[in-house]
Amino acid sequence: MEHPENSEEYKGLTVNKGIEQPSAINPYLKSFKRPKRRQFTPGEYVEGILKGDVTVLSQAVTLVESVKPEHQTLAQEVIEKCLPYAGNSIRVGISGVPGSGKSTSIDVFGLHVLEEKGGKLAVLAIDPSSERSKGSILGDKTRMEKLSVHPDAFIRPSPSAGSLGGVARKTRETIILCEAAGFDKIFVETVGVGQSETAVHSMVDFFLLIQLAGTGDELQGIKRGIMEMADGIVINKADGDNVEKAKLAATHFRNALHLFPAPESGWTPEVMTYSGFYGIGIKEIWDMVYRYVDFVKANGYFEHRRNEQAKYWMYETINEHLRDSFYNNPEIASLLEVQEREVLDGKATSFAAARKLLDLYFNQKK
Amino acid sequence: MEHPENSEEYKGLTVNKGIEQPSAINPYLKSFKRPKRRQFTPGEYVEGILKGDVTVLSQAVTLVESVKPEHQTLAQEVIEKCLPYAGNSIRVGISGVPGSGKSTSIDVFGLHVLEEKGGKLAVLAIDPSSERSKGSILGDKTRMEKLSVHPDAFIRPSPSAGSLGGVARKTRETIILCEAAGFDKIFVETVGVGQSETAVHSMVDFFLLIQLAGTGDELQGIKRGIMEMADGIVINKADGDNVEKAKLAATHFRNALHLFPAPESGWTPEVMTYSGFYGIGIKEIWDMVYRYVDFVKANGYFEHRRNEQAKYWMYETINEHLRDSFYNNPEIASLLEVQEREVLDGKATSFAAARKLLDLYFNQKK
Repeated sequence: MEHPENSEEYKGLTVNKGIEQPSAINPYLKSFKRPKRRQFTPGEYVEGILKGDVTVLSQAVTLVESVKPEHQTLAQEVIEKCLPYAGNSIRVGISGVPGSGKSTSIDVFGLHVLEEKGGKLAVLAIDPSSERSKGSILGDKTRMEKLSVHPDAFIRPSPSAGSLGGVARKTRETIILCEAAGFDKIFVETVGVGQSETAVHSMVDFFLLIQLAGTGDELQGIKRGIMEMADGIVINKADGDNVEKAKLAATHFRNALHLFPAPESGWTPEVMTYSGFYGIGIKEIWDMVYRYVDFVKANGYFEHRRNEQAKYWMYETINEHLRDSFYNNPEIASLLEVQEREVLDGKATSFAAARKLLDLYFNQKK
Repeated sequence: MEHPENSEEYKGLTVNKGIEQPSAINPYLKSFKRPKRRQFTPGEYVEGILKGDVTVLSQAVTLVESVKPEHQTLAQEVIEKCLPYAGNSIRVGISGVPGSGKSTSIDVFGLHVLEEKGGKLAVLAIDPSSERSKGSILGDKTRMEKLSVHPDAFIRPSPSAGSLGGVARKTRETIILCEAAGFDKIFVETVGVGQSETAVHSMVDFFLLIQLAGTGDELQGIKRGIMEMADGIVINKADGDNVEKAKLAATHFRNALHLFPAPESGWTPEVMTYSGFYGIGIKEIWDMVYRYVDFVKANGYFEHRRNEQAKYWMYETINEHLRDSFYNNPEIASLLEVQEREVLDGKATSFAAARKLLDLYFNQKK
């Protein structure tokens, strides 16, 4: 079965069935303007989403990602109406540096959970560096061969380039829409080289870190702080000659994890080896994830973490906006350069320079 | 020789030598009002500090720590005038959980560097939880028996309780004053259980983490992220029966450090064992610190880190103030509670709630 998102309907060509296409009026017309897609009403969006209509869901996500103010207003209304139906899912963040076999792994992981647990899976992504026009490096459907043609999977690339906060907001809102559309498994993929891990960690229930076996040098690729966020670390490419190396790497990671304080969840992060390519060890990984979910649902941490995340994003949004309002202010921007120079030249303390800038900002507002 | 800070003069009783004490006028006067200490002019402060007068330095630090606006204005003027004379020091952050023998270690470390390198040492502290009235837990002079009576050491407890940003600012400004007074070695002590490590890390050249040998359980005391900030990790109490355990712990830490990416400095953090109580391994630790300083001065990272720190504190001060202005706004504070509830009850998204609060805030200002 063709994936709905690959259909003509998804591409917006035939949604508006009530209106005849120009090409139908004159089939010989060489160049015709595609009729503008009729905008759904908020009610129609919500109805379509709650029915699990992937076409409507896709279009709603496009609204969320749009920069046009009228789209944003509409998107917020749709999201708010979907909110009571959201939340019934397991959200798993999946991170790994390029080369760790992340795409193949997600393909295999997704197929496994759909076969084992049923339900529906949405694969989203956060990559603030991506630009849609250049082809997003994450969530590229061709990289997930099996999932991309699976009827119960919905793959959406990362929102296009923007501030991390903006990209993260869009992904988080997309989670709400997907959950309202009945997707009870959400994967949020991220490339393991930047701050986006913190953003992903702040919107998922379980954070899975994909690593490679190898020498100490290869392990240097892990960004500071990322290992400490992991609820599970899985070493890929544990196949053939590589099995022993992978097991050794797992031991190193286990020892390292002992040096960190126990996570608030009460869960001890587990380290496993697997082979995404050969499909070895996949069940063990997902048994672990579901064991974790049972564990934190029982001890109340699941709910607690989701509440903390909701608060985190409220405060993070406020703080980001406060900073934007300050640093994007033209007068501030020009004084900032001057003050930074003064600080670096040892002519003003950091605090005196900050004070001057703040005085300018708050006096403007009066 | 008595430490200047312990003298009568330091306590402010006899600074004002030109004016006769009431008790001198009438020696039988039972209760008399101590004459108000004459306030130095900014020029007098700077002159005293540049001469290395510890009494004047102490009083200038008291100004820095004062909450009175007139003191703050005066303090800023003094700091600005001292700034051109500051910077010529090695700043070392020293962290360790309570029980790690931090005070004894600092006493021994300080004595060692003064004996080996000469010069003058200031020991400052950051502990946002401390309250002066209750006796600061850090920088308590009685805990540093030898340094507290050393003529070339200046010990100052943590500024009293306040926001971390406020306490950190005061300590950072105190560093400037101490350096201008000729202190070419600065220790900044912090208790290894909170966010204050990040603050200390952001104002020192070398971050030394004191750890204890012990079982895996004891190592759980390290706060997330702290180990990754360390330029050196030293395992205390490597004496008697404990030597082997300490060596084993050192190996564990060394392995764990390999899992982190190489620090920007190009320096590989070293792990050593020592005994603060028996004075074993002290020279090796400080040889390492000085080796580090030579290394980063040669590759340019020393200067780079100081510049980054200066910028960090400028931006951090701005951001903290922007947040304070928002969250301390009475109207915002009351709406915040309402919106947080909406978010937790699933009635509003984090982003919609943030938007409402931001609208209120920015409309007020217009």
